[in-house]
Amino acid sequence: MRISSRGTVDPFIVMDVMEAARRAEAAGRHIIHMEVGQPGTPAPAGARAALARQMEAGPLGYTVALGLPELRAGIAALYGRWYGISLDPARVVVTSGSSSAFLLAFTALFDAGARVGLGEPGYPSYRQILKALSLCPVGIPTAEANRLQPVPADLPEGLDGLIVASPGNPSGTMLDHAALAALVGHCAERGISFISDEIYHGLQYQGRAVSALEISDDLYVINSFSKYFSMTGWRIGWMVVPEDHVRTVERLAQNMFICPSHASQIAALAALDCTEELDANCAVYAENRRLMLEGLPRAGFTRIAPPDGAFYIYADVSELTEDSRALAAEILSGAGVAVTPGLDFDPVRGHQTLRFSYARGTGDIAEGLRRLADFMAVRGKA
Amino acid sequence: MRISSRGTVDPFIVMDVMEAARRAEAAGRHIIHMEVGQPGTPAPAGARAALARQMEAGPLGYTVALGLPELRAGIAALYGRWYGISLDPARVVVTSGSSSAFLLAFTALFDAGARVGLGEPGYPSYRQILKALSLCPVGIPTAEANRLQPVPADLPEGLDGLIVASPGNPSGTMLDHAALAALVGHCAERGISFISDEIYHGLQYQGRAVSALEISDDLYVINSFSKYFSMTGWRIGWMVVPEDHVRTVERLAQNMFICPSHASQIAALAALDCTEELDANCAVYAENRRLMLEGLPRAGFTRIAPPDGAFYIYADVSELTEDSRALAAEILSGAGVAVTPGLDFDPVRGHQTLRFSYARGTGDIAEGLRRLADFMAVRGKA
Repeated sequence: MRISSRGTVDPFIVMDVMEAARRAEAAGRHIIHMEVGQPGTPAPAGARAALARQMEAGPLGYTVALGLPELRAGIAALYGRWYGISLDPARVVVTSGSSSAFLLAFTALFDAGARVGLGEPGYPSYRQILKALSLCPVGIPTAEANRLQPVPADLPEGLDGLIVASPGNPSGTMLDHAALAALVGHCAERGISFISDEIYHGLQYQGRAVSALEISDDLYVINSFSKYFSMTGWRIGWMVVPEDHVRTVERLAQNMFICPSHASQIAALAALDCTEELDANCAVYAENRRLMLEGLPRAGFTRIAPPDGAFYIYADVSELTEDSRALAAEILSGAGVAVTPGLDFDPVRGHQTLRFSYARGTGDIAEGLRRLADFMAVRGKA
Repeated sequence: MRISSRGTVDPFIVMDVMEAARRAEAAGRHIIHMEVGQPGTPAPAGARAALARQMEAGPLGYTVALGLPELRAGIAALYGRWYGISLDPARVVVTSGSSSAFLLAFTALFDAGARVGLGEPGYPSYRQILKALSLCPVGIPTAEANRLQPVPADLPEGLDGLIVASPGNPSGTMLDHAALAALVGHCAERGISFISDEIYHGLQYQGRAVSALEISDDLYVINSFSKYFSMTGWRIGWMVVPEDHVRTVERLAQNMFICPSHASQIAALAALDCTEELDANCAVYAENRRLMLEGLPRAGFTRIAPPDGAFYIYADVSELTEDSRALAAEILSGAGVAVTPGLDFDPVRGHQTLRFSYARGTGDIAEGLRRLADFMAVRGKA
């Protein structure tokens, strides 16, 4: 059987790094993982306890497609706590992680051939999901002066949609209220559908992340229990859509997904109340970030923008290499530290960037930084 | 913001029935649920115990996109037990239910505009998922003489793909080896990609279901833990693809889904060994089916094809009504039994059909049949 042209997707370069790290570990080597995009912590204890209880209380059958009503209400209440805005739970769509949210959003908003803009560097799957849905991703190079976030002047003519992420991956930089409002306004004036990826909200170190919902109701917001709530493998997230899009998204969700995992919905509902444990996780990231901002420059990675949120640091290594993939391989074999070459995030400038993740325990971060410093000191002399 | 044309999906009629049933229950009425397409039983005890244990043992992070290697191996072993065939675990793709499997299969196989055939009556979401992916569903009316399954002579020219389900929903009828081989052969000769939906395998009452993998390796098979394994709300399923499609599907899955729920994968792995409990569930369905085949004709629903598998009976009610939706509403209000009008499954002939599900407990089935008989006796006299 023939494979479709839209099924032909670029590989993830980070997967090669992870595979090389796995091989090194299988050969007995100790590796520090700064390549991973997920917390090392489990789902909060309260979430696990709620599921353990409820899965013995009765069958976890299909839920309604938009998710358990109490979970939708709990998520809506979060917008009061986090941003001080009142959100109608009817606009909340529970999804199987942000992945399903992207599939739903792109399908509800765009027909085949539509042009959807995305900042570079950015999350690589935006581009691949768009292609898989017969849409045209339009990469928008961002400027270091704008802390690697797009600004209205960067946007080309003829876009049908725009995806923005704040805090961004891989940069960790945030759009403040004015910068986000400028983008939302630009798009609203031109009929460009606006999608705000807010999956790193809650993980912030300088001020607080601004939700696009603080600016307009006529856009899609996508979020997830993966990062702040420490539930990556549970595949549970949500989307907030304009009131007049709810029925459309509901019907799409009924057909495309039936419902998100009932088990994960139960865990997520309880996770909303586990603030103490989750804030303790954040304190670890904050300390990791402090160590990284101190240790990376010492190791020779001086061109970094201090990240406002998420758990990544994106480094310009153009003074060290023209081949980030080779440098990452060198660091893995020489220092025993796995890092991600920037190519997944930026097919052009990513040849000269690396992403460091500080999502794991502080002990690992400190050890990783020591190894990087030692390795780079020797490499520098070579 | 504008809603896309592919986002404009037909509603599920069964949802109206479920909502009407919910309202009746909220008003204090007792309703027998013969409209639902899911078991009333929970995930097997062994599956729940495994998850309870493992979620306390460490974080459930992302798994690799194709699923836990031990789960893929376990699923491959099932093909030995069920069909006596040897299947390479490398061809098994774990998915978030059959829903995600359809999204992956359609994306890997078809470009926008491709024409994909599906038998009518059939699972309504095939059509809606295809439309959401900018593909063209081609409804193929099936004959009662062929027990509502397509045969090669039914297939129009110019198809790019064909989806077949055996046991079928809503009919419960199966394709035997010869009938399935005829379809597979016809498609192979014409370059039509073949997708076999086998989600009701394991729930069979006359002989055994034949997998398309017993006939060819050059096709996609989709299956799920929802039905036989009684895990609907866990959203976990799988797909078997040709060896030379694995890398394509892997990359699509990495981007579109990252991975299926880790929690559900753990539960599913343990469920593979819970044969005793699952076979006891099947014995209940078999008894329910016996009662239905006896009771429905007595109640006046005489035009039914005895179902080989699944847990549905599809009845031709053309002697009773020209409006199955009105008849279903009448039965709900008059008899307190929720049933599904055929329109979801067959937009044309479904005006004169009903689907009865016997997935719940035997007590409910017996009571439902009593109510149906009483109601129809009165209705008949009117």
